[in-house]
Amino acid sequence: MEAAALSRIGLAGLAVMGQNLALNIAEKGFPISVYNRTASKVDKTVGRAASEGGLPISGHHSPADFVLSIQRPRSIIILVKAGAPVDETINTLSQFMEPGDAIIDGGNEWYENTERRIRDAAACGLLYLGMGVSGGEDGARHGPSLMPGGSFQAYKNIEKIVTRVAAQVDDGPCVTYVGEGGSGNFVKMVHNGIEYGDMQLISEAYDVLKTIGGLSNSELAEIFADWNLGELESFLIEITADIFNVKDEHCEGDLVDKILDKTGMKGTGKWTVQQAADLSIAAPTIAASLDCRYLSGLKEERVSAARILEEAGIKGDVNVNTGRSIDKKRLIDDVRQALYASKICSYAQGMNLLRAKSEEKAWNLNLGELARIWKGGCIIRARFLDRIKKAYERNRVLANLIVDPEFAREMVQRQAAWRRVVGLAIEAGISTPGMCASLAYFDTYRRARLPANLVQAQRDLFGAHTYERIDRPGSFHTEWKKLARQNKPGIAVLK
Amino acid sequence: MEAAALSRIGLAGLAVMGQNLALNIAEKGFPISVYNRTASKVDKTVGRAASEGGLPISGHHSPADFVLSIQRPRSIIILVKAGAPVDETINTLSQFMEPGDAIIDGGNEWYENTERRIRDAAACGLLYLGMGVSGGEDGARHGPSLMPGGSFQAYKNIEKIVTRVAAQVDDGPCVTYVGEGGSGNFVKMVHNGIEYGDMQLISEAYDVLKTIGGLSNSELAEIFADWNLGELESFLIEITADIFNVKDEHCEGDLVDKILDKTGMKGTGKWTVQQAADLSIAAPTIAASLDCRYLSGLKEERVSAARILEEAGIKGDVNVNTGRSIDKKRLIDDVRQALYASKICSYAQGMNLLRAKSEEKAWNLNLGELARIWKGGCIIRARFLDRIKKAYERNRVLANLIVDPEFAREMVQRQAAWRRVVGLAIEAGISTPGMCASLAYFDTYRRARLPANLVQAQRDLFGAHTYERIDRPGSFHTEWKKLARQNKPGIAVLK
Repeated sequence: MEAAALSRIGLAGLAVMGQNLALNIAEKGFPISVYNRTASKVDKTVGRAASEGGLPISGHHSPADFVLSIQRPRSIIILVKAGAPVDETINTLSQFMEPGDAIIDGGNEWYENTERRIRDAAACGLLYLGMGVSGGEDGARHGPSLMPGGSFQAYKNIEKIVTRVAAQVDDGPCVTYVGEGGSGNFVKMVHNGIEYGDMQLISEAYDVLKTIGGLSNSELAEIFADWNLGELESFLIEITADIFNVKDEHCEGDLVDKILDKTGMKGTGKWTVQQAADLSIAAPTIAASLDCRYLSGLKEERVSAARILEEAGIKGDVNVNTGRSIDKKRLIDDVRQALYASKICSYAQGMNLLRAKSEEKAWNLNLGELARIWKGGCIIRARFLDRIKKAYERNRVLANLIVDPEFAREMVQRQAAWRRVVGLAIEAGISTPGMCASLAYFDTYRRARLPANLVQAQRDLFGAHTYERIDRPGSFHTEWKKLARQNKPGIAVLK
Repeated sequence: MEAAALSRIGLAGLAVMGQNLALNIAEKGFPISVYNRTASKVDKTVGRAASEGGLPISGHHSPADFVLSIQRPRSIIILVKAGAPVDETINTLSQFMEPGDAIIDGGNEWYENTERRIRDAAACGLLYLGMGVSGGEDGARHGPSLMPGGSFQAYKNIEKIVTRVAAQVDDGPCVTYVGEGGSGNFVKMVHNGIEYGDMQLISEAYDVLKTIGGLSNSELAEIFADWNLGELESFLIEITADIFNVKDEHCEGDLVDKILDKTGMKGTGKWTVQQAADLSIAAPTIAASLDCRYLSGLKEERVSAARILEEAGIKGDVNVNTGRSIDKKRLIDDVRQALYASKICSYAQGMNLLRAKSEEKAWNLNLGELARIWKGGCIIRARFLDRIKKAYERNRVLANLIVDPEFAREMVQRQAAWRRVVGLAIEAGISTPGMCASLAYFDTYRRARLPANLVQAQRDLFGAHTYERIDRPGSFHTEWKKLARQNKPGIAVLK
């Protein structure tokens, strides 16, 4: 094989994401070799490259040919299912790779697996990157958001490629070297947790508008399209408008109404919640989103519970007070504000989780830069990520997005509407767990004095856990029961 | 040493919990040997035994003497810090133990550590129990709730002792053989998660009554004492009444007001939340309690946030509408109902977490029996645990406490008050994350149709994750964007 024929990069794992990313790379002018265990997918990818104007993709059916077809130092992207398939693919390919070559895992991998593989790769002289890829199939093809972490040298070797392949926004490509170790995977995991939160909050807005406001799907389509012109502008709001516009292909009506209300998931949301607990970070909005996916899965139980509770006296599916006339226009405007304010709290949780992990692992994550690379390409891409970026540029050690002066002002402007929406939903028996969790987070975080003093008193009483005081330093323990008996006035207890 | 001098059981680890449990065992007529690495604690324990009427406790300064002073097959309880200290203590003692002897770890241990130690012990012919012990120092001394899991033979060897030592309630001692493996530790962990929930909910009730209702500590003391005569009767309600009766020893005022609002924790709450996520169980009330402990810890950040948000326009610490007069009597009654209903949801979460783990591990946990052994001795002991026991007796496969006919009726009776309290708090800017989480859980679980259909549509649109339909079997994928463009009516989007 002649040197001239060598590819600039390789990609193994040709499910749709892999095919699309390979086509994207080739389209940007970087000749790419592709490989898949199932040969037909190699041929399919090569066929797509040909039909899309002869993109420079070379297909290989043997791992050896594939590896040797790439110029050194080699960079090979792997896009297979997280976990064991990644290890298998590494084993298959690495035997033909040489010191200085790099493996780039583009899957939703648990960050500790990446850290283990970085060590294993280093033992063979190989470089390793764990690179979060967001944007779904479409993003992979036309410009994803890329979150590479691990070997800096491995990143430098593909920097020219990924900065061309990633989505492009006003302030650059949606890619940056995230940091060492498994930081790229961790950032992608939190991105997905935030995505869970966004989707949950949007579904709650939909529910309130539909169930309390009585809005039709075509009205909802218009409202979401309208919201997408303002502060809520984002991919998820845009596609929500699209969804309400789709008719059922099988029968009368809109497709969204025919979809079963059971939500699937793939694990990154769960990891986000578990990591938040591990790092002592409150992430209630993201946790509420995960819980709702779990509860949505219990469809049969919910149907049965609805019947039992109705028999016990909660009339109808919800307690909507049909006697009260709803001011639709105001409700729509309130829900928009509630959604935006809830979203800020959810992002605050995600960013603080990233910072806590960064401190634990000494990753030195740049939160503003991470907000920037999420501005395009990925599922949570949104106009307001630019505002988050700027908040961290104003103050790199910002304790919480809520206390950034601009966001604080926005929260204050929206809080009345937010409280109205959540209050209305609670009254109506419509659950808005995400919006409630965000509001409780906001009201807890901005509270100088919480009732946690009582919890500390309880812990000291039954477990001698001691407490601190507000007026003097030190740890104290009190014999509560003894003192309570001494101090208790002789009043009879109220009956 | 003569056979007659041998003790019936041994206990190693003489911090206050260990001392108290040893005294309890001795008091029930079982001669006990005690050991501690720091010899002074051995002497202190023996001294306490003497001063409490010559209880049969023999102290030992050497591990060999300690082990050999116990009759065979030996049962040795360990009460040291969870983790490495347990392994160290096992290493120290097991070298003198013989096949058939048993180690019983009474700490708050991670259940997987217990499962590892069961295997290690079995390799040496030793039996092993992980036994949750709840009730704090007082419970250990006068009757704890005991949750032993692991070797059934090891349990049988101490059954006569633990059934005497445990708290006694109307239907027996607060101890049962929980199940195999680490089930005893796991049950104790969930008990602690539920305890977090109870404490959080009580602190929210306190906050609402104090901040919105304007109640004084002496009024709160009376209210909690009064509540303790009714359906809320429980240890935590009782001690809360006591706490409000304690005056500050250092200066004017009540002690509870001087306690810093930063809450400590020891890990079991965190594990509970992480396990719930792992097992696809929604446990939002317990999670909210954990989050509040985390947020309470950020005291300086909260003080700063309160100032910044106040400057941005949220006047005062809270938005209490002082213009509106509060009907105190009704508020108190509403809060009582909200607390009770929220508590039911929290217990439903904990019980379902236990069931899910039981299924995963084939532990065959008896949920009704676990509710029974929590009726006395432990921190969450409460009158209504008898009702939970009966609910599971009525239906061993009850899907959720909420749908037990009696609890369902109670929830329905209390839902209006519950919604009023949470709505009032939201309006006032007082966070009630636990009550909100419970209410959202209730309203989500009893909803036959959730807006999760939209989430599935979004996932199918951007990730081709497919969806199910309500009207026909199968998995479907739709080209949403293409169809949206086709179907979209030519309406201009609202501005």
